[in-house]
Amino acid sequence: MSTEQQPGGHMAAEIAQQPAIFDRLVARRAEIAEVAEVVRRRAPRFVLLGARGSSDHAALYAKYLTEVLLQLPAGLVSPSTTTLYGAEPDLTDVLVISVSQSGGSPDLLEVTESARRRGALTVAVTNTSGSPLNAAAELSIDVGAGLERAVAATKTYSATLLALYLLVDAVRGGRGEHAAALGELAQKTLDHSREAVAEAVQRYRFVNRVITTGRGYSSATAAEAALKLAETSYLAARSYSGADLLHGPVAAVDGETGVLAVTSAGRGGDALREVLDVVHGRGADVLAVGSAADEVAAALRVHVERTAEEVAPVLEILPIQRLAHGLSLARGGDPDAPRGLNKVTRTR
Amino acid sequence: MSTEQQPGGHMAAEIAQQPAIFDRLVARRAEIAEVAEVVRRRAPRFVLLGARGSSDHAALYAKYLTEVLLQLPAGLVSPSTTTLYGAEPDLTDVLVISVSQSGGSPDLLEVTESARRRGALTVAVTNTSGSPLNAAAELSIDVGAGLERAVAATKTYSATLLALYLLVDAVRGGRGEHAAALGELAQKTLDHSREAVAEAVQRYRFVNRVITTGRGYSSATAAEAALKLAETSYLAARSYSGADLLHGPVAAVDGETGVLAVTSAGRGGDALREVLDVVHGRGADVLAVGSAADEVAAALRVHVERTAEEVAPVLEILPIQRLAHGLSLARGGDPDAPRGLNKVTRTR
Repeated sequence: MSTEQQPGGHMAAEIAQQPAIFDRLVARRAEIAEVAEVVRRRAPRFVLLGARGSSDHAALYAKYLTEVLLQLPAGLVSPSTTTLYGAEPDLTDVLVISVSQSGGSPDLLEVTESARRRGALTVAVTNTSGSPLNAAAELSIDVGAGLERAVAATKTYSATLLALYLLVDAVRGGRGEHAAALGELAQKTLDHSREAVAEAVQRYRFVNRVITTGRGYSSATAAEAALKLAETSYLAARSYSGADLLHGPVAAVDGETGVLAVTSAGRGGDALREVLDVVHGRGADVLAVGSAADEVAAALRVHVERTAEEVAPVLEILPIQRLAHGLSLARGGDPDAPRGLNKVTRTR
Repeated sequence: MSTEQQPGGHMAAEIAQQPAIFDRLVARRAEIAEVAEVVRRRAPRFVLLGARGSSDHAALYAKYLTEVLLQLPAGLVSPSTTTLYGAEPDLTDVLVISVSQSGGSPDLLEVTESARRRGALTVAVTNTSGSPLNAAAELSIDVGAGLERAVAATKTYSATLLALYLLVDAVRGGRGEHAAALGELAQKTLDHSREAVAEAVQRYRFVNRVITTGRGYSSATAAEAALKLAETSYLAARSYSGADLLHGPVAAVDGETGVLAVTSAGRGGDALREVLDVVHGRGADVLAVGSAADEVAAALRVHVERTAEEVAPVLEILPIQRLAHGLSLARGGDPDAPRGLNKVTRTR
């Protein structure tokens, strides 16, 4: 029996493919720069990002990139204002980026078609060139992660982050410098984090309640971590930005709570430190993941290679995917096929 | 000892004040219409909403109102792109609405000051006229809920929803018709839901895991419900829009999960029905709250008076506040003073 036929075999294989996928995507930078050139010429004044599930966290990452690197205000689309209530706002000067690994979600398709009719420049970011979403959008980017068999998105998520970074960086005239080494750094991160992740799987085997948190760019990683743990290991995992956590939810944090804190070197990681002091003071068990994991009070630490802060989310998620995979197996599940989920979710 | 000195006495009193607060706010409609008139004249092309904690859910409600009723694209502000990364986008033609009961959150203040410098029309919506946020913004709306003593926001939340509705409705030239009866309907909802809420407190005394869900306008109520339960009763409560729930988190739903479903008459409630069929099929215990609670498969139902869908969130939250209050007491807590929380949270 091949590795991939064991429970979680697909997810394990797909996690391991990511360094090579990053290298291939960086090598295709010129394709993405062509899309970016059209965006530059149209000079949008506002950016809207549409997505569901894991892709929604990639969209959150792109929202930060857009606001900080492009200095453009951005928002996440609420598809139901279009699909349920038929809103048809004027979208002249608006860039709408629709993110979906399958490119098959009916609600995103409707949002994209509707946005294009209303004057938006539309870009589809998918892992399925030739999907209905690609056909609906004026421009498309293929994240090139290859077929993903496990239901829980891993390589399509990280490849989407990288594609969005390359797009935004190219729009501002960059050459993807911070992305060049990500393949190599991803391999190092996977190799060097193996033992710490195995230890975390042991420690959190019986955890029931997990809160994930991050600030700035890393809040996207925290959101994706919570989803990954919920969908593969059935944990009651919730994500809060570090700031929002202090506005209420921190009351539910106690000695029974596992807190996965994404702490990369940079302003987001720095700002998270005061949040973690509070959480730690409440007796929570902190698992710090990131290049600045050493700098916070934590029960366990998982190191991630250091990068420019704006590309850190591409690496931060890797050991978290391994953690979700390991916990799912340890708890008797099959991370390739979580109960109740299909690969493509059709919501309206 | 007066009622208000008992545990949860403040929160109970503040919940009960809401019908009268709604009446007073509707009576002050002309003040809000003056602010709306300035907004109309400036004709913004885009709306950004900034908030933290409960106010963030009021902002989510306003995002739906803006997109559907004003046909303007809208986004929620990520304060950290300003406060941590110093983003300074051009905000000409942008309306920035900052929502905060205290008007004292340093990050929102910075976002508002920065937005005004960059050309945005800024409106502060607070419960504290004379707050720093009011001073920073060009225009202000006082939600007029009066001093709130309980840490968990109740009357300031619902009054903020209503103020935002009156603002948006006036911008489109409306006269707040759907809001006129809300005071009376709020009283009826509180009176008629008392028994069902008491039953729900019994049933969920020992629940550990709660998911809240809603679609459309009601997704704001679901988000606020999860926060209220987490902060008063320390539950691992997580909110998902009905559509997002099917994209992964539904895997974590099982017979141990309590699902609080906000089901009001209208398109959002209709669209939630298929989500609840899935959740119910997985053995979850559904508590349906709303004017269409009868129309879904549920273990318990809490009725809310029927209104136009766009103002339903103002009423939906009332019995949920009572549920949070009751559960907190039943679990030995004090909903007026949850552990680890202060009334004003100072995040940067």
